[in-house]
Amino acid sequence: MSRVITLLTDYGLRDSYAAEIKAVLLSLAPAAVLVDVTHEVPAGDVRAGQYLLARTWHRFPTGTVHLAIVDPGVGTARRALAGAVAGHLFVGPDNGLLSSLPDAARWVTLPVPAQAAATFHGRDVFAPAAARLATGAAILDLGPPADAVVRAPLPAPRWDGAAWVGEVVYADRFGTLVTNLPGEAVEPGVRLVVGDREVGALRRTFGDVEPGHLVAFVGSGGTIEIAVRNGSAVRLLGAGVGTTVRA
Amino acid sequence: MSRVITLLTDYGLRDSYAAEIKAVLLSLAPAAVLVDVTHEVPAGDVRAGQYLLARTWHRFPTGTVHLAIVDPGVGTARRALAGAVAGHLFVGPDNGLLSSLPDAARWVTLPVPAQAAATFHGRDVFAPAAARLATGAAILDLGPPADAVVRAPLPAPRWDGAAWVGEVVYADRFGTLVTNLPGEAVEPGVRLVVGDREVGALRRTFGDVEPGHLVAFVGSGGTIEIAVRNGSAVRLLGAGVGTTVRA
Amino acid sequence: MSRVITLLTDYGLRDSYAAEIKAVLLSLAPAAVLVDVTHEVPAGDVRAGQYLLARTWHRFPTGTVHLAIVDPGVGTARRALAGAVAGHLFVGPDNGLLSSLPDAARWVTLPVPAQAAATFHGRDVFAPAAARLATGAAILDLGPPADAVVRAPLPAPRWDGAAWVGEVVYADRFGTLVTNLPGEAVEPGVRLVVGDREVGALRRTFGDVEPGHLVAFVGSGGTIEIAVRNGSAVRLLGAGVGTTVRA
Repeated sequence: MSRVITLLTDYGLRDSYAAEIKAVLLSLAPAAVLVDVTHEVPAGDVRAGQYLLARTWHRFPTGTVHLAIVDPGVGTARRALAGAVAGHLFVGPDNGLLSSLPDAARWVTLPVPAQAAATFHGRDVFAPAAARLATGAAILDLGPPADAVVRAPLPAPRWDGAAWVGEVVYADRFGTLVTNLPGEAVEPGVRLVVGDREVGALRRTFGDVEPGHLVAFVGSGGTIEIAVRNGSAVRLLGAGVGTTVRA
Repeated sequence: MSRVITLLTDYGLRDSYAAEIKAVLLSLAPAAVLVDVTHEVPAGDVRAGQYLLARTWHRFPTGTVHLAIVDPGVGTARRALAGAVAGHLFVGPDNGLLSSLPDAARWVTLPVPAQAAATFHGRDVFAPAAARLATGAAILDLGPPADAVVRAPLPAPRWDGAAWVGEVVYADRFGTLVTNLPGEAVEPGVRLVVGDREVGALRRTFGDVEPGHLVAFVGSGGTIEIAVRNGSAVRLLGAGVGTTVRA
Repeated sequence: MSRVITLLTDYGLRDSYAAEIKAVLLSLAPAAVLVDVTHEVPAGDVRAGQYLLARTWHRFPTGTVHLAIVDPGVGTARRALAGAVAGHLFVGPDNGLLSSLPDAARWVTLPVPAQAAATFHGRDVFAPAAARLATGAAILDLGPPADAVVRAPLPAPRWDGAAWVGEVVYADRFGTLVTNLPGEAVEPGVRLVVGDREVGALRRTFGDVEPGHLVAFVGSGGTIEIAVRNGSAVRLLGAGVGTTVRA
């Protein structure tokens, strides 16, 4: 069994919140190996969290416990979940954050102890559950089965009869626009359009264009990305999450 | 014995400083498990460092070594300390950073080797001491007992005859204002005032108000906090560390 | 053998890239201890990456594998390298990033698998190589010897007959200017000039001047640094990487 616990949150790195969670994890699961996916999800941005989780979880060793917390509804009636699928384990709020996982996932509802801080289930509900999973508990040891988990999948592209129409689902630190258009959907030579701006046909990588120029390619997540070599497509195109992309 | 060493500094994550400390720790204590509390304490902000240390240390396993370095007086006559209390071990400068720890703490003064960089005791004085503690040294092995350690505790609230008067002691990445008013001091229904703005009575959590509205609650550290749901109380109220809060 | 793998990249911490690399490393080398040097190298800034690598690698335990990726030419003809020197192992692109390492380093060229993402050799080429080194592979197991590795060393200071003339090679989060002038080159009492502004003779540390004042000292990397106590020399002097410094 892996001893890895990943952490994906919007707590940031300048406050104590991520560290309080790690303290709980290491107190309850001293042999766990903690790996930060990121704590810099934009505050409350469940969709960005979902995207980042979808990109990463399956690359970790089988048995990894993934603690994912972007939870603007913390302390309300939204459920706390633990689940399992494809040999991986997941803990997080039932608000769509976990909805990129395979349908076969099985979920349980975590009980919320009376003394849990209503604004910090990360520390008082999710982290203890993750630690128990990392030390061998089964998900059914943690709570009763949960049906009808919230599903709010990222938007899917569609064929409008003339072209694939997708959208930007993520923009990274380099200002690169990640779309939901699968690389294999786009034939060689087809020209991409972001908003109303044509960005050319697919290339292989940044270095295939001159510095400062737009470049489209099949990104490392398997979908089309639009970037500016040594620059930012977000800035050059004024584009962002939700911008339409046609191919 | 725990093998955990926590790091709490204002070195940031973009330079080499935190990594140089980790290199020293892993060279001298290869089995140590390093956990970043944060490296994003505002530069030289001893008070914020003290607050973050106070929130976190006691949640880690017994035996943890806490390396805390916010040290604007590095290389001057201020002492370098190592200490122990409540089964935890601490290393850091004698400038008030460590003054939230229990009075029962016992301290020693760390010698400063001649070859230590005058501007980087973190690497050349504190990290070697933390590594020795993590590998089993006692604090008295590290230096002579230190009396009269600098105490600069965070401000305490007072009762002015009509209300509790406290202040904001920390503002987090979400723009939430953390006060020094203990949750149990505030009766249900009492209305909080931040600066000259009334923010209502205590609620449980963010979701108890509409998006964009102010909400006060007993925070996860046990004191009153004021937030804006899906927003920032720092921005909405123009408040920050030192702002008066009445309850 | 050390089990440490360090990571030094410009991937940032808010996207999934650093985590995808860690997932690969822990899948292939489950016992590895991962240490972030930084992921905040300015995007594509090979020179800053080189400086940060030069400051850190030699402080880690012998046998450490250093994964260094600042790679604006990813997916082009630039080679992927693995190398060894002084008991340490290195993996990264052949673009000058590794050119601060000792001349005695021996290098091999890493093959690029057909399925590697052309924009993410960090995950698909460099991380698997680092994991193999961390689990005992020799560099010659990874690829054929590479000659004529790109050397783009940081600028060296010169003696112009009257003074040492160097330059700022790095500016840190505190706004401190790190120069390439070795501390031992500057005699006591010699006055430093940054751009056209005199900053006085060498002191020991920040606390040797009043708050808000300029201070020059031999920094923790062994070269002259110019800082402002409780402030920023970058802002006060309008200086940065490349600014001339005379001593």
